Amino acid sequence: MAWFEDIKLGETLELGTHTFTSEDIIRFAEKYDPQPFHTDPEAAKESHFGGLVAAGWHIAAVWMKLMLETRRNQPQDETPPAPDGRAAPRGGPSPGFFDLKWIKPVRAGDTIAYRTTTLEKVDLKSRPYQGILKSFNEGFNQDGTLIFSFIGQGLVERREPYRAPATE
Amino acid sequence: MAWFEDIKLGETLELGTHTFTSEDIIRFAEKYDPQPFHTDPEAAKESHFGGLVAAGWHIAAVWMKLMLETRRNQPQDETPPAPDGRAAPRGGPSPGFFDLKWIKPVRAGDTIAYRTTTLEKVDLKSRPYQGILKSFNEGFNQDGTLIFSFIGQGLVERREPYRAPATE
Repeated sequence: MAWFEDIKLGETLELGTHTFTSEDIIRFAEKYDPQPFHTDPEAAKESHFGGLVAAGWHIAAVWMKLMLETRRNQPQDETPPAPDGRAAPRGGPSPGFFDLKWIKPVRAGDTIAYRTTTLEKVDLKSRPYQGILKSFNEGFNQDGTLIFSFIGQGLVERREPYRAPATE
Repeated sequence: MAWFEDIKLGETLELGTHTFTSEDIIRFAEKYDPQPFHTDPEAAKESHFGGLVAAGWHIAAVWMKLMLETRRNQPQDETPPAPDGRAAPRGGPSPGFFDLKWIKPVRAGDTIAYRTTTLEKVDLKSRPYQGILKSFNEGFNQDGTLIFSFIGQGLVERREPYRAPATE
């Protein structure tokens, strides 16, 4: 994970892929979203989806998993320590997500490729050691069709504390 | 689940509670959000949270689970069949959710009470047998503190097809 100062706006990061198997879809849905089109392949055929589809929160949770894996695999030499000795930037809690859209169904066997694009950086007078990074996040199926998107926000640690410009 | 026509705006429905045990928090996070403050009680003490906390998507997924249970337990006699013989209204896919906010941490042992309040009903010329229901959804901990909220949308089946008003 990069320090806030080093994040470039407009950059897209590929987060990797996940294949939603029937077993995977059913296991998540039995616990959190037990509707027949998520849990029962036969009943799903009779639903408006015409077959088993992944639960919306499942599609979102896999984004989180791939996002973390991608961050962890980033080369450490891209994040030199801060002048005050802090070794590496840490992510903080999210101030909230916007506009979650499940655009097309994710069917059993679909492989979803996720990516994230940096949208906006917000300096915070109230938190000099953190900034808010807004990102646009997308998932595409193996046909290249957009199936999921949302705007995410995260608090990212700064290498050096923010100093608001002096006012006249 | 009620027919679209029978849903009253401004009504709040209690969805029940869920206690987030350590085991529950760790099991979800190991699969979808393996950060130390979600998966390792000792390491979590050293984090900015000061202890184990539930993953954001976990808090959201439990809302879905309780929402479904509440719908299923609604008395059937409140949803008389449609004139054309359809027995009971079905929910459809969501056109999207807005403004997800994780306001306070959910700690191991916290019991969260969820509720949903109907906000808006949208008639659809494009889908005469469904309408969009917008709702405001909240989770409160055992101290009555709001910890999570979002605006949800769902397609809900109508008892009778929508007929747009004639234009002059």
